[in-house]
Amino acid sequence: MERKILFPQVDGLLHGGDYNPEQWLDRPDILEEDVRMMKKAGINSATLGVFSWAAYEPSEGEYHFEWLTDCIERLYQNGIYTILATPSGARPAWLDQKYPEAMRVDSYGVRYHHGVRENHCMSSPVFREKVQNIITRLHGAAGDHPGIIQWHISNEFGGECYCPLCVKRFRSYLKEKFDGDIEKLNHAWWTPFWSHQYSDFEQIEPPYQNGEYSIMGLKLEWRRFTTWNMTDYMNFEIDILRKLTPGRPVTTNFMQLYNGLDYRVMAQSLDMISWDSYPAFHNDYESLADTMAHNAFDHAVMRSMKKDRPFMLMESAPGLVNWHRFNKLKRPGIHRLFSLHALGCGSDTVQYFQWRKSRGSYEQFHGAVVDHLGTDDTRVFREVEKLGEELKKLKAISGSLVKAKAALILDWDVMWAVEDMRGLSDETKRYAETCEEIYRAFVRLGVDVDVISQTDPFDDYRVIAAPMLYLLKEGVAERMSDFVERGGELLATYLTGYVDADTLCYLNGFPGDGLNDLFGIVSEEIDTLYPTDRNGVSFSDDGTEGEVRDYAERLRVKDARVLGVYTRDFYAGEPAVTVRQKGRGHAWYLGCRMDMAHTKELLAGMLDNAGVERKDLPPDVEFHVRACDGHRYEFYFNMGTETAAVHGVTGQDLLTEKTVEGTLVLESMGAAVIATEREE
Amino acid sequence: MERKILFPQVDGLLHGGDYNPEQWLDRPDILEEDVRMMKKAGINSATLGVFSWAAYEPSEGEYHFEWLTDCIERLYQNGIYTILATPSGARPAWLDQKYPEAMRVDSYGVRYHHGVRENHCMSSPVFREKVQNIITRLHGAAGDHPGIIQWHISNEFGGECYCPLCVKRFRSYLKEKFDGDIEKLNHAWWTPFWSHQYSDFEQIEPPYQNGEYSIMGLKLEWRRFTTWNMTDYMNFEIDILRKLTPGRPVTTNFMQLYNGLDYRVMAQSLDMISWDSYPAFHNDYESLADTMAHNAFDHAVMRSMKKDRPFMLMESAPGLVNWHRFNKLKRPGIHRLFSLHALGCGSDTVQYFQWRKSRGSYEQFHGAVVDHLGTDDTRVFREVEKLGEELKKLKAISGSLVKAKAALILDWDVMWAVEDMRGLSDETKRYAETCEEIYRAFVRLGVDVDVISQTDPFDDYRVIAAPMLYLLKEGVAERMSDFVERGGELLATYLTGYVDADTLCYLNGFPGDGLNDLFGIVSEEIDTLYPTDRNGVSFSDDGTEGEVRDYAERLRVKDARVLGVYTRDFYAGEPAVTVRQKGRGHAWYLGCRMDMAHTKELLAGMLDNAGVERKDLPPDVEFHVRACDGHRYEFYFNMGTETAAVHGVTGQDLLTEKTVEGTLVLESMGAAVIATEREE
Amino acid sequence: MERKILFPQVDGLLHGGDYNPEQWLDRPDILEEDVRMMKKAGINSATLGVFSWAAYEPSEGEYHFEWLTDCIERLYQNGIYTILATPSGARPAWLDQKYPEAMRVDSYGVRYHHGVRENHCMSSPVFREKVQNIITRLHGAAGDHPGIIQWHISNEFGGECYCPLCVKRFRSYLKEKFDGDIEKLNHAWWTPFWSHQYSDFEQIEPPYQNGEYSIMGLKLEWRRFTTWNMTDYMNFEIDILRKLTPGRPVTTNFMQLYNGLDYRVMAQSLDMISWDSYPAFHNDYESLADTMAHNAFDHAVMRSMKKDRPFMLMESAPGLVNWHRFNKLKRPGIHRLFSLHALGCGSDTVQYFQWRKSRGSYEQFHGAVVDHLGTDDTRVFREVEKLGEELKKLKAISGSLVKAKAALILDWDVMWAVEDMRGLSDETKRYAETCEEIYRAFVRLGVDVDVISQTDPFDDYRVIAAPMLYLLKEGVAERMSDFVERGGELLATYLTGYVDADTLCYLNGFPGDGLNDLFGIVSEEIDTLYPTDRNGVSFSDDGTEGEVRDYAERLRVKDARVLGVYTRDFYAGEPAVTVRQKGRGHAWYLGCRMDMAHTKELLAGMLDNAGVERKDLPPDVEFHVRACDGHRYEFYFNMGTETAAVHGVTGQDLLTEKTVEGTLVLESMGAAVIATEREE
Repeated sequence: MERKILFPQVDGLLHGGDYNPEQWLDRPDILEEDVRMMKKAGINSATLGVFSWAAYEPSEGEYHFEWLTDCIERLYQNGIYTILATPSGARPAWLDQKYPEAMRVDSYGVRYHHGVRENHCMSSPVFREKVQNIITRLHGAAGDHPGIIQWHISNEFGGECYCPLCVKRFRSYLKEKFDGDIEKLNHAWWTPFWSHQYSDFEQIEPPYQNGEYSIMGLKLEWRRFTTWNMTDYMNFEIDILRKLTPGRPVTTNFMQLYNGLDYRVMAQSLDMISWDSYPAFHNDYESLADTMAHNAFDHAVMRSMKKDRPFMLMESAPGLVNWHRFNKLKRPGIHRLFSLHALGCGSDTVQYFQWRKSRGSYEQFHGAVVDHLGTDDTRVFREVEKLGEELKKLKAISGSLVKAKAALILDWDVMWAVEDMRGLSDETKRYAETCEEIYRAFVRLGVDVDVISQTDPFDDYRVIAAPMLYLLKEGVAERMSDFVERGGELLATYLTGYVDADTLCYLNGFPGDGLNDLFGIVSEEIDTLYPTDRNGVSFSDDGTEGEVRDYAERLRVKDARVLGVYTRDFYAGEPAVTVRQKGRGHAWYLGCRMDMAHTKELLAGMLDNAGVERKDLPPDVEFHVRACDGHRYEFYFNMGTETAAVHGVTGQDLLTEKTVEGTLVLESMGAAVIATEREE
Repeated sequence: MERKILFPQVDGLLHGGDYNPEQWLDRPDILEEDVRMMKKAGINSATLGVFSWAAYEPSEGEYHFEWLTDCIERLYQNGIYTILATPSGARPAWLDQKYPEAMRVDSYGVRYHHGVRENHCMSSPVFREKVQNIITRLHGAAGDHPGIIQWHISNEFGGECYCPLCVKRFRSYLKEKFDGDIEKLNHAWWTPFWSHQYSDFEQIEPPYQNGEYSIMGLKLEWRRFTTWNMTDYMNFEIDILRKLTPGRPVTTNFMQLYNGLDYRVMAQSLDMISWDSYPAFHNDYESLADTMAHNAFDHAVMRSMKKDRPFMLMESAPGLVNWHRFNKLKRPGIHRLFSLHALGCGSDTVQYFQWRKSRGSYEQFHGAVVDHLGTDDTRVFREVEKLGEELKKLKAISGSLVKAKAALILDWDVMWAVEDMRGLSDETKRYAETCEEIYRAFVRLGVDVDVISQTDPFDDYRVIAAPMLYLLKEGVAERMSDFVERGGELLATYLTGYVDADTLCYLNGFPGDGLNDLFGIVSEEIDTLYPTDRNGVSFSDDGTEGEVRDYAERLRVKDARVLGVYTRDFYAGEPAVTVRQKGRGHAWYLGCRMDMAHTKELLAGMLDNAGVERKDLPPDVEFHVRACDGHRYEFYFNMGTETAAVHGVTGQDLLTEKTVEGTLVLESMGAAVIATEREE
Repeated sequence: MERKILFPQVDGLLHGGDYNPEQWLDRPDILEEDVRMMKKAGINSATLGVFSWAAYEPSEGEYHFEWLTDCIERLYQNGIYTILATPSGARPAWLDQKYPEAMRVDSYGVRYHHGVRENHCMSSPVFREKVQNIITRLHGAAGDHPGIIQWHISNEFGGECYCPLCVKRFRSYLKEKFDGDIEKLNHAWWTPFWSHQYSDFEQIEPPYQNGEYSIMGLKLEWRRFTTWNMTDYMNFEIDILRKLTPGRPVTTNFMQLYNGLDYRVMAQSLDMISWDSYPAFHNDYESLADTMAHNAFDHAVMRSMKKDRPFMLMESAPGLVNWHRFNKLKRPGIHRLFSLHALGCGSDTVQYFQWRKSRGSYEQFHGAVVDHLGTDDTRVFREVEKLGEELKKLKAISGSLVKAKAALILDWDVMWAVEDMRGLSDETKRYAETCEEIYRAFVRLGVDVDVISQTDPFDDYRVIAAPMLYLLKEGVAERMSDFVERGGELLATYLTGYVDADTLCYLNGFPGDGLNDLFGIVSEEIDTLYPTDRNGVSFSDDGTEGEVRDYAERLRVKDARVLGVYTRDFYAGEPAVTVRQKGRGHAWYLGCRMDMAHTKELLAGMLDNAGVERKDLPPDVEFHVRACDGHRYEFYFNMGTETAAVHGVTGQDLLTEKTVEGTLVLESMGAAVIATEREE
């Protein structure tokens, strides 16, 4: 693997965050102090202009950019690079006052009032015109400054709009998708059910909350359309930027597994992936190791969207956030652990929201490097400063990559279809959580995993887990079959292959589209358990019994080996877990929601079959690998409360600058980055 | 009693369900297969056209009925009769597009968008015009076919509409009810309270959620009006049908104790009662015996609306449903138990929603006889097929009737008034649940009970329980007094006779309108307990103590025997349960919400006084009787997990075709139908 | 202190309640019976006309006042005085029909329909015109009657309006507040955050629920404006009345710590304070002693608004209410205990909602002196009658005052700012509850406390507790410093002095504006605990350990004595509670939410320092003192279930008319009023 450096201008990893000098223009002393403190904290980048439209253009046609150019230059003179945002994340009041069509309409059909942020109508021509103007002028004023290393498009895209313009675009979108043939749409959406046939595309409305919410296909296409329209809007901005500054990379900041937008579609237009990570540490419902593994999963989702380059941790909270249910302080050491963990998962940046707390308004108590107290001797500042020093020691890892041999399939389309489908129990469907749980099982086995779409290539992997793949797209079954044939280990579970891409059920047996041949089983029916119900799976190989909650399918075995059978209820003794050898690989089927320990055992079997190395890690120790150009960087994190010893570790710890030979001892909250020459 | 056959064309009990061939018109192979499988499953009826408007008339004025007539004929040729629905349950999109006034307006005053179903404005003239047209054309195309045995009006009527047309009709309705005299209305609604007098009927608005929701009389009349308007609409359809096909029976399918419509008003226009039953089997909050007894209660509500004929189980789920909180599979044997139980409770049909699962849309995972798998070897198909065979053995029971000697009073007016009244606790009022609990106490005593209105005749009964009869209509107190005088046993409870039919309080003592003379007590005040509060009732007769929750009245005894006194709190020692002999009967008063076991004891005493036979049943065994023409059919169901022995049973078991003499042994989930010659 | 008699016409304490003869105009027998029963119950006042507009003016321009004048005269002839209400609490239907702008608009921007009450637009000119007319005519018809002793303005003001008229007034209000300078507003609201600068006052909208809810300053000003506008409306009524009947006192009835209006602003226009008290007795979440102490706190809030005169208990429930979650009966003796307790807390009246239950509508089951039964032998009537007798024995206390030496600071501005601030946890902020808990700690120490604003004078007090004083206004820090300097004992807690009056954060250290100098500490960060998290405070003085929940600040000590340190987590050993001597007083800082017992110990230390006498009371005994003209009246209440002995009591018990020397024995639910000659 070749090293892939995101920002050649920057020497090593990026350390920075959102910076809002426009809030302090009447306090030049504070602006000076900011630079001094940034340097002290080892900051080498600042994100400017995320919400600065009204500062640039306080009334229509009146422009002020000097404060910005001054700031970029001041930072640059002090070795700090600028990531410059387009200001479309929030509209000035004058704009909504004069052009109300820039505001969205809600799902009840009512137009919003002016306010808040991230809520422009994606279809509005006048809004686009105003955005084009301000971006063009922004570039004219500051855009060519050598300190600028990246464009940051708008901010955390999200939401949806039901305005007449969007409704019209939705109809055009559908007309194009269904070749202008309303009968094609009627068949795909199975509209004869409840007499819902359309005779004209003009009759179609979005799934208003007080309208048509009973057609699954309509709901799914509306979600796809919202992604399409948001991407169309984003590309409108990107096109402007690419013309103005060809070659300068663009990104936009994603929000975890945000349900409202299929990020993979948007990612195609971006030069690199960046995201905002805000775990709820020290909560009352999971261990710290689970919180971190969950975050590793989110990192993997992001990383896998552009596997050939590092991603950016665009935002994180230096102290705490102000919007969790309980906004608890991050305990000492967590900031370091969290930040190094992001690097271990493939990030080449550690960035914060925000540099300095705003004096007023909605996020005045959101954590920042600099507090209202304004000093550089706070616990938070010191932790940031200390991390800044450590990041310099890790310069070598920049541009190295995670190369996973296992993949997990998680699709937005599946997430949406499962959420909308009427059946099972809305309280226990938990599609994304189930994917995340299986990811965590891989983590406990010390194996890095990509999180991919069912339509992504399978070639890079030896093991693939595809949990709850309810919506199965055309050609995927065949590609899965090929994957197994050629030696792949494939895991599917209950609720696989029930519907096609339009949400029409597969006839003649689930999992459909030929998958029941691949796995050698047919699922006759699926049982939804009450939360207090339990079943078990008895494994004949080792005599252990797994625990079953929530869902259990009754399987007919056509041609497969039964690994485990149900232990209770009327389907006691019937197959619950099966495997079928095909070609050089195996197709594994897990018919029920089973406990983590036994799921992990299944995965271990698959990994061993595939010859993928797994690690024997102490509990609560997490492991990741990055590599490039013949170098290998092993990351170890101890999330437990006790000191842990990891055996079989050899190399140089970049943080301590000491050599490890054999056993790595990690204190509680400890981290190590071991450099070796072996690349895999 | 004389046998009352619902459908002379059909030989025995009806076995069928909703069938939607319009979803498969491009799959003639499937339509052929349907007929083959129906015959295999012993199906002799199909319900067609429930949501077929858009299939009949895909755009305004364009008609297609061939697929329907073909289907009716194909079924008829194979011995399967058709129940034909009017298609008003859902409107085609073109209709709402062109005539938006056909769509309802919500309680906030906002018109709905097109979508979903069962949501037309009942007042809209243009909608009625369109319905008249499609029904007339439907009849013209298919209506005289000899295979059609019944009209099914629309589907599961429900909801309400706040549109200007409905508001206008509401005002007319009120003007007529109050003789055009606004002062009469002002007095009835006690409008001087909070200065709410009206000076003109035009000032009256429905109880908008953002308007007038504080007048109890207004809220009650709005509910009555909604029933009135829905019935008016339904009768509009029925009138058309009766003209087109005089003599062909009509029904519409009810939904359990649906709160929104007083089914007894609607029932008057129907030839027979049908309803849709979907219990949540194997749940986590009650025993199977309780689930079944609750369903028996619902059957009794339906049966009692037309006591002189069997009712129809119009819909039930062969497998599971897709809209419960947890959509659990029906365990093996439940389908049989549930279906035979419906017969025992007075149904002459076992019908399903639905024959075959729809490939897409809202109910694609609602249970059906034929699954997406499409085969006749599934567990569900086999259970249906086996039941089809057993139904043939029960041909003799068709047209026999349940003849109850006890009645329970439950009124929609009371349900609405109790729900709306401000006082007690909204969390514990539970009017219908309390009625159902008393019904269950009767079931445990082996006694069939009619569920009637306070305005229904009392002549057929020896025992009447009238729980929580908060709203007491004119003349009822007097009729109750006569009932007792002539030897009846009458039970009333706390919260009886507080208000009149307009919700004005009775003055001079609860229970009002003379009932305090009948019972010989006055209720001075009612205590609402917190959920953790408990009181007790000490019974002097047997020294036992009942448990009191939720509500307790402090009673003044005028002329009654005290059976039990409170054991705690400041009213310890005060009367809780009383009885007063009057003429040849007794008036029992239960001043508090007491546990099931002690309530059952009270009922047992009443039954014994009245000479009504009760049975000594094993726990979890349920018993019902149907009879006619000198035949008596005893139904026994064992809902328990253990084998049960019922003593004193003699006759022939129609299912096993064996003779029982003395003791009937029922396995868990077992059922027996014992035919004897004794009719009572 | 000088005695301050509220109503010279009345001989002693006021005993009365809401009376609605307009509901019974067709029942002269009932109106006669009312007077007979009032006299029997010792009633000497009735509140008339609260909701009588439609009775006065059933259609526009048609007036009927005879029934009212007859009633006032009839009562007067029988020694019963009238409190006459203005009828604006609810509009007649004809008014809303003809002038829809009198109805409010909700926060979604939708106008309400006609209905309910207390919901007129405060800005509507036509509504004010109609009110002026009806008040003028009311006065013309009845206003000069000598039986009338007070005007009661409207009823329980509340709510808010988002109509165009109100929006316009809001903009004018802001323009005036910010001197017409939009940049002043932009700075105060920190609008550069999220690009929210306004360039024109016309761009500002209220915080619509579907609009701008993210600016803290806007939200706070909207709440202040609503108080301003409501007061403006109220003053409009008062101005009319003062012109018509100069010298007749006016009040309006408040509702506990109603969140929607800053009562202290409204109080300035009133001649006396009155409020409606409806505790939930015998609930399942607190002891009776806590229920009563909570009510004492509410009394103190009301009393402190006009410390130089008694307040009025304008409404209370003789039996139960009908709008609690569980409407439980008040147990025997509670009515007496609650009523005497109100007197002990400074009320000179005991008044009821309502005299007689309305036969119908929303509150037909709200408790009343006379029930639907209509007799004078009910438990409730007898308790009222007995209380009426006792009130006569307490004539001497009329006009005496509570003179507190301790004060608690609670501000509506703080309540609003804390509620709106984004941070901590919305589930545990509990500002008012925390104030109330500290008040209860004082009550347990036998010390009367005023509840004041931070801008009220501090001169009267030796001890002040200012919990969670998040929003700190200009000049308050300096006044606090002076207070301590001159010998005051001041307690502040976590979350003090974070923001200024515009909600801008104080820079350079919390508590801000110099308070960190006064207390000698700086709060570096605040930890929000999960509900299951606990920390402790170890006190070096006595070795005890307090329990910490919800919030804990990490403190830097600049110049203070550390009293207690945290016992757990990463800040174990760091200061949690500090005190700093300054001048002759002390500034105490409690950095965390600590248990009641240890909080009480802190307060005891402060009281002792200040030389404020505290009492050693048995558990569940509450103590209050009123005094005047050299007389002192000590009130003792035993809220426990056991008999209690209070030592050191000397004087005459006005209720038993016996002398107490040394020890007062109080039965459970017992009360005593001890008159002595010592005034303090």
